Amino acid sequence: MQNYRQVAKAIETMVVRGAPAIGAAAAMGMALAANTCKSKPRERSLRDLEVAAKVLGSSRPTAWNLFWAIDRMMRKAYECQGSGRQIALAMVEEAQRIAEEDIAVNHRIGEFGASLLTDGDQVLTHCNAGTLATVSYGTALAPIRTAIAQGKKVSVIADETRPRLQGAKLTSYELLHDGIPVTLIVDGAAGYVMKIGMVQKVIVGADRITRKYVANKVGTYMIALAARTNNIPFYVAAPTSTFDLGNGSGDVKIEERDQGEVTQIAGKRIPPRGVHVFNPAFDLTPLDLVQGLITERGVIAPTSWEDVKSSLRQERVSS
Amino acid sequence: MQNYRQVAKAIETMVVRGAPAIGAAAAMGMALAANTCKSKPRERSLRDLEVAAKVLGSSRPTAWNLFWAIDRMMRKAYECQGSGRQIALAMVEEAQRIAEEDIAVNHRIGEFGASLLTDGDQVLTHCNAGTLATVSYGTALAPIRTAIAQGKKVSVIADETRPRLQGAKLTSYELLHDGIPVTLIVDGAAGYVMKIGMVQKVIVGADRITRKYVANKVGTYMIALAARTNNIPFYVAAPTSTFDLGNGSGDVKIEERDQGEVTQIAGKRIPPRGVHVFNPAFDLTPLDLVQGLITERGVIAPTSWEDVKSSLRQERVSS
Repeated sequence: MQNYRQVAKAIETMVVRGAPAIGAAAAMGMALAANTCKSKPRERSLRDLEVAAKVLGSSRPTAWNLFWAIDRMMRKAYECQGSGRQIALAMVEEAQRIAEEDIAVNHRIGEFGASLLTDGDQVLTHCNAGTLATVSYGTALAPIRTAIAQGKKVSVIADETRPRLQGAKLTSYELLHDGIPVTLIVDGAAGYVMKIGMVQKVIVGADRITRKYVANKVGTYMIALAARTNNIPFYVAAPTSTFDLGNGSGDVKIEERDQGEVTQIAGKRIPPRGVHVFNPAFDLTPLDLVQGLITERGVIAPTSWEDVKSSLRQERVSS
Repeated sequence: MQNYRQVAKAIETMVVRGAPAIGAAAAMGMALAANTCKSKPRERSLRDLEVAAKVLGSSRPTAWNLFWAIDRMMRKAYECQGSGRQIALAMVEEAQRIAEEDIAVNHRIGEFGASLLTDGDQVLTHCNAGTLATVSYGTALAPIRTAIAQGKKVSVIADETRPRLQGAKLTSYELLHDGIPVTLIVDGAAGYVMKIGMVQKVIVGADRITRKYVANKVGTYMIALAARTNNIPFYVAAPTSTFDLGNGSGDVKIEERDQGEVTQIAGKRIPPRGVHVFNPAFDLTPLDLVQGLITERGVIAPTSWEDVKSSLRQERVSS
């Protein structure tokens, strides 16, 4: 991509998707914006970067990593006391750091999460929170990768995840590619496979975590309810950059996407013309349905938001 | 259709689907079989009918109406003391009676169910339990039709219902056709629309009801859990022919259907080749999640199976 507007478009149209990948892409978009300011004085450069931040920040409303990455990039710009050229150098470096950190963070999530998995476990996951949703290694899929690397036999049940079918297209693909056993089901079958004993753990990613909710791909909430009813631990794997710690109300804006995502599959219209469609991209899972938040700082039981916040505010683990 | 084997194939391949429609079709298949026995003596005729009963009974394993209709047709055959010709006449009449009764029964379900609906209600339904799943009028959609005929404003949220998309293709179609307001959502969004207050009642159909479970289209169980959590009444609308009263264990064989239903949408392959697929067609909702069973004999609270059985064994209401 040649400029930040292309990056914003790629995020909006889900060419890049997955909260951590969106964050890293937005950081790269900010770096591209900074590169065009190389010959500009500092004030003009910062003004242009604020515009880029606004455009990138309007691409999608729910994933917190987007705002986290843009804020971090803008902080870096303001910290840099030099010219446009020096700001650009600093921002390119910072974007690269964000991307590299994401990989390291995901490996830490993998290590902490793997300790929760037992030899023989079959793990249900929703949507794609793997390599294809991050810079590499994944969030929800990281504990599975690490557990397998440790010699445990772990297999995956992937929900197909309508409307965009990320489970069928992406999770199936990356697990098959890496030789990890995967079984694909329709979203509606998640409760049944739990009920008949096919699932030992559920691990999903997150787009935003607040004092009240985990916002994640629509369908997550019903999976969490079915897991609770069937006494199956429900884990959320996410880097600390997904935590919206300053959100006092805990409420989250849920993106509604185009009807065409529901009405067109593989280019073909499914329902009759004229039907009204409601297409929320995410849903909200109350924190009390979550057994543990698997982060790069450890696994946190979300019993109290103050505890979560203090766990996350610890000194960053060197990685 | 020209013979019972074509009918069995139509049921197996879901050209005819929906438990009451399957029952009526199987009865017609038995009548077609009886018609080919017109010139045969009674014993030979009964032997051929037993073969037809076996073939039709092997078409699909879950919907109880299939076995109910075949049993009723065979009882009629054995009751008739005449020749093949007389048996055929009796069976054609019985099949037509089953089809006509289905319509009357569904209107009774509509009347009893409509009393549960309030002006302004939005009702969530799953799969298709409408006109296109019955001889006419529907089961889950019957209360909605009747309530609207009574002047209540009632609208519907239809799950698209993967893998076969009966909600997107059939429920949307028949409600649009009849001018009943309908909103289509993906299956995973059912919990979210309940959580944000868009749903006042849930009504689904059933393929089989036992002392333990409602077997219905896969996805029903998670909807029932989300309804319970959000204090939304969850109703099952079904004729008494869906009740498997003699089933002591309450267990139900859940049909697994072809992988292609999941992997191919609109003729196009979605997941990568080589992925393993599990495709259960139904799931099991424990009776304690059901607020009421809407039948042609009235609305029954399934608090005790003995009460359910005694309600259903009452003298048939003339219709």
